[in-house]
Amino acid sequence: MNDRFLRACRREPVDVTPIWFMRQAGRYMPEYRAIRKRHTLLEICREPELAVQVTLQPLDRIELDAAILFSDLLLPLEPMGIPFDFIKGEGPRIEKPIRATEDVENLRRFEPRDALQHVLTTIRILSKALEDRVPLIGFAGAPFTLASYAIEGGPSSNYAKTKALMYGAPDTWHKLCDTFAVIIADYLKAQVEAGVQAVQLFDSWVGALSPDDYREFAMPHTKRILDIAGSTGVPVIHFGTSTATLLETMAEAGGDVIGADWRIPLDLAWEKIGPDKAIQGNLDPTLLLGPTDRLFAGAEEVLRRARGRPGHIFNLGHGVLPETPVENVQALARFVHGQ
Amino acid sequence: MNDRFLRACRREPVDVTPIWFMRQAGRYMPEYRAIRKRHTLLEICREPELAVQVTLQPLDRIELDAAILFSDLLLPLEPMGIPFDFIKGEGPRIEKPIRATEDVENLRRFEPRDALQHVLTTIRILSKALEDRVPLIGFAGAPFTLASYAIEGGPSSNYAKTKALMYGAPDTWHKLCDTFAVIIADYLKAQVEAGVQAVQLFDSWVGALSPDDYREFAMPHTKRILDIAGSTGVPVIHFGTSTATLLETMAEAGGDVIGADWRIPLDLAWEKIGPDKAIQGNLDPTLLLGPTDRLFAGAEEVLRRARGRPGHIFNLGHGVLPETPVENVQALARFVHGQ
Repeated sequence: MNDRFLRACRREPVDVTPIWFMRQAGRYMPEYRAIRKRHTLLEICREPELAVQVTLQPLDRIELDAAILFSDLLLPLEPMGIPFDFIKGEGPRIEKPIRATEDVENLRRFEPRDALQHVLTTIRILSKALEDRVPLIGFAGAPFTLASYAIEGGPSSNYAKTKALMYGAPDTWHKLCDTFAVIIADYLKAQVEAGVQAVQLFDSWVGALSPDDYREFAMPHTKRILDIAGSTGVPVIHFGTSTATLLETMAEAGGDVIGADWRIPLDLAWEKIGPDKAIQGNLDPTLLLGPTDRLFAGAEEVLRRARGRPGHIFNLGHGVLPETPVENVQALARFVHGQ
Repeated sequence: MNDRFLRACRREPVDVTPIWFMRQAGRYMPEYRAIRKRHTLLEICREPELAVQVTLQPLDRIELDAAILFSDLLLPLEPMGIPFDFIKGEGPRIEKPIRATEDVENLRRFEPRDALQHVLTTIRILSKALEDRVPLIGFAGAPFTLASYAIEGGPSSNYAKTKALMYGAPDTWHKLCDTFAVIIADYLKAQVEAGVQAVQLFDSWVGALSPDDYREFAMPHTKRILDIAGSTGVPVIHFGTSTATLLETMAEAGGDVIGADWRIPLDLAWEKIGPDKAIQGNLDPTLLLGPTDRLFAGAEEVLRRARGRPGHIFNLGHGVLPETPVENVQALARFVHGQ
């Protein structure tokens, strides 16, 4: 097995910098779009055979050092009692968003080994299929990010409803995040038991918070998950976007690897995270939409800022965009491996 | 005239910290909503009598140290040949977004004193009406932010089309931004001639860029505008959001006052900006949606971080949200003046 990714997570020396991409399986690939013609996103997530197939698709085409489970952050919401669907061109839509204390009190804790058994089945099949190839990464959403979807009812630009509840009903907020934390920690544990060799906690939207608010409203719940995920023994990646002023506190909350986006130079991000953590990132995903000379120059700059120090995993600062040409993703992976 | 705001822009001592709010006139006010029942946003912008009325509305209710012209960032687009409208619940929509070099070549430079004469008339009326009250702030959009609307065709979450053009056709990008820079600089000069006593350049979405990209693609055009605006003699405010890693370079680009958002603590932002600039900000606008004890604690923290140094203008980190209770805005202004 290619263990570059796992070695980098542990800050051990590697032959070349490992690379994988958030959303490396997805709409930018014609193979994926072909499956999406016949199945919805949720069908793919819920049907192990399809989820396995989609997870493996990019590995056949792109020089990747890890696979990431094809799934969705929101899957745990439905068994909690927050049903949702994906609306074309809009993203997720929650039927009845969380708005009041009683909505939170009515949430169900559940056993992921039952309600999300299909995910664990997918992991078991994948972990066998990938045995001689690359490690498999599992993942879940962090409490702030999940709460923002549950409260807004979908994507948001200003998180007004989320923060209004957070400031106006802090007890309800903490209860909601506590419920998420218990469920997500257990879900990640179940993923490790089923065979993932690393996990990533996505706190994608946490950069909407001030550093003080992060510490008060997000960190305690995130830390709880990261402590439990860390105790499983597999490397834990802790990721967010727009986190230039949160990185120190995110590192304090936990994770072996901290993910950073392109808004902060990688060396500066690593200084904030500290030398005892690995770092993942941080190329602007839109560079994959432009000419390769600029793409490679950007990648070279990221590698230059990592200075060959053990503990750098190359990735984008956020997911591959649907309009990305596959050839550019292929070329970028080859380029990083060639440095 | 209450000159606290102007004194703070020049880093002169003031009796109490001056305060004004981005979008202090707008949908959160019942008086404004009453007018919007009978007129579209563009009608209000284009009809001096209405724009004057709306600009003055918050001054009667809230302890404000400045008025800001009621207008819209996108007004210069139409006379350039980029018509747009506002779609309910969606924001601006550009009919034919800029996509190719020829779209940029076809843009018209125009004389703001003709095409945007109605704005200058509004300013003349306001500057008379406000003579014994508070200074009037004029404003315009910065090239990156205007280009992102012109290219995306409306609001965006990832600026994929904008950056694809920027990376893929840098000459076209620079030509577009150069056209914006010439027009916006002239427009701000015309606003000063008509009577505004300060101007704010809104680069609201520039925080989507990495520091290197900011320096290459945004800064030269912004600097050109700020140089010309600065030569008029009125204080110039340079504002953006998600700019924690851009503030040094934004300060280098120009402006007497740099606006920061809540994602960075005010003292840290001021360190990055340097002691020879004033600072504006930086409370999270969503704090106005919650209870006043938390709102006041947040405001107190902003003031504490300003440490009473001359050159702090209190504001939010972005505009007042439509769902904000007017009483909270009133209470916040009183609170800041009472410290």
